Formats: sequence, structure tokens, C-alpha cells
Amino acid sequence: MPKPVRQVLVCVNSRPPGSPRGSCGERGSPTLFDRLKTLLRERGLDRSVMLNRTYCLKHCSRGPVVAVQPDNVWYAGVSAADLDEICASHLEGGRPVERLLMPDIPWE
Amino acid sequence: MPKPVRQVLVCVNSRPPGSPRGSCGERGSPTLFDRLKTLLRERGLDRSVMLNRTYCLKHCSRGPVVAVQPDNVWYAGVSAADLDEICASHLEGGRPVERLLMPDIPWE
Repeated sequence: MPKPVRQVLVCVNSRPPGSPRGSCGERGSPTLFDRLKTLLRERGLDRSVMLNRTYCLKHCSRGPVVAVQPDNVWYAGVSAADLDEICASHLEGGRPVERLLMPDIPWE
Repeated sequence: MPKPVRQVLVCVNSRPPGSPRGSCGERGSPTLFDRLKTLLRERGLDRSVMLNRTYCLKHCSRGPVVAVQPDNVWYAGVSAADLDEICASHLEGGRPVERLLMPDIPWE
């Protein structure tokens, strides 16, 4: 892989059960990461998109949080059902998925 | 914090001792992360720059790896002594630190 054109960051941080804000890890982000990895490979996007797991990306209560750089686009509450659209619209088409954008409110 | 203007990613991934490529974690990146966190706060950059720890960012043999987004700038072999310059030149001045740039070779 050359220098990545895009970088997709998936928060896989887990907080202890019962934490008031919850966490991306508790909401299934490790499975999301695995599914996205497979999708990128199937679509040939793995040659230009680097996929990385991260520790806490903030805004835990709105997880799973996914960021797409260098677009500085932040998605909230991403589910496995959203990944095809993120790949097709954003990573292939360059159009972020509006309905998943993190609300423009102060970050936790 | 509003939506971050910049995001700095520090790989803190560790491989088992004896791994041929080594890892950012083994080369002291957790300490690097802590120092950078303090520096960002001291310079008032913590209001616009989000600092995150990540799992493997690839190119392990050239770690510690630090990425600055949305500039898509990748640094290799970053040490604590480089952090002041990264803050002053890149995060405040918008000029990436050329001598630390990841070489443009295929990524591991």
C-alpha cells in the first residue's frame, strides 16, 4: 500500500459495564471494524484506504464513533447496516453520508 | 471542545518482545502521548486539536508513528524531543516538520 488516500478510524474503546455514557466497544464497534475491513477488501478500497482501530475518540454516548480523514468527517451511531453506504457514497463517491454526521454540539 | 480542527494520532501498539519489526509501544510511544497531551494543554492547543491513541498504524519498523489529520501528514521515528517543533511548526504554524516525514515507500 502507498501512503493512504483516506484513513478510516473506528473507536473500539470499552468502558466498564454500567458506565453512564457507555462506549463504542460495548455497542459492537469491534464487529463493525471487522465487517468494514472485509468490505474494503471486497471493493478494492484496501489499496487506498487505511483502516485503523483507535482508543477513545470522545462523544462516547453517541458511539460507535467513526472518523474519516483527511475529510475530517465524523460519524455517530454507526451500525453494520450503514457500512455499505459509507463505502459507496463517501469512500468511493466522495459524498459523506449526511444522516450519520455527528451533531455539531460540544464534544464530550 | 467543538469539532476538532486537527486530530493527532499516536500509535501505542505493542508487539511481543523480540518481534522483528518492533513496535511503536516498545519504542516509548505511550510516554510520547502523555508528553504531547501536556504540551497541547500548555499551548492552549487542546481546544482545537484532538489527541488520540490508536492501535497499529502500520510501518511498525519506523515507529513511533504519528499522523496529523486532516493534513494527511505522517511522521516516523518521533521522539519526545521532536514534540515542541511539531507543535510550533505544524500545529500552530501549519508547516509540517519535513525532517520527520514518513518516507514515500510502500507501507508495511
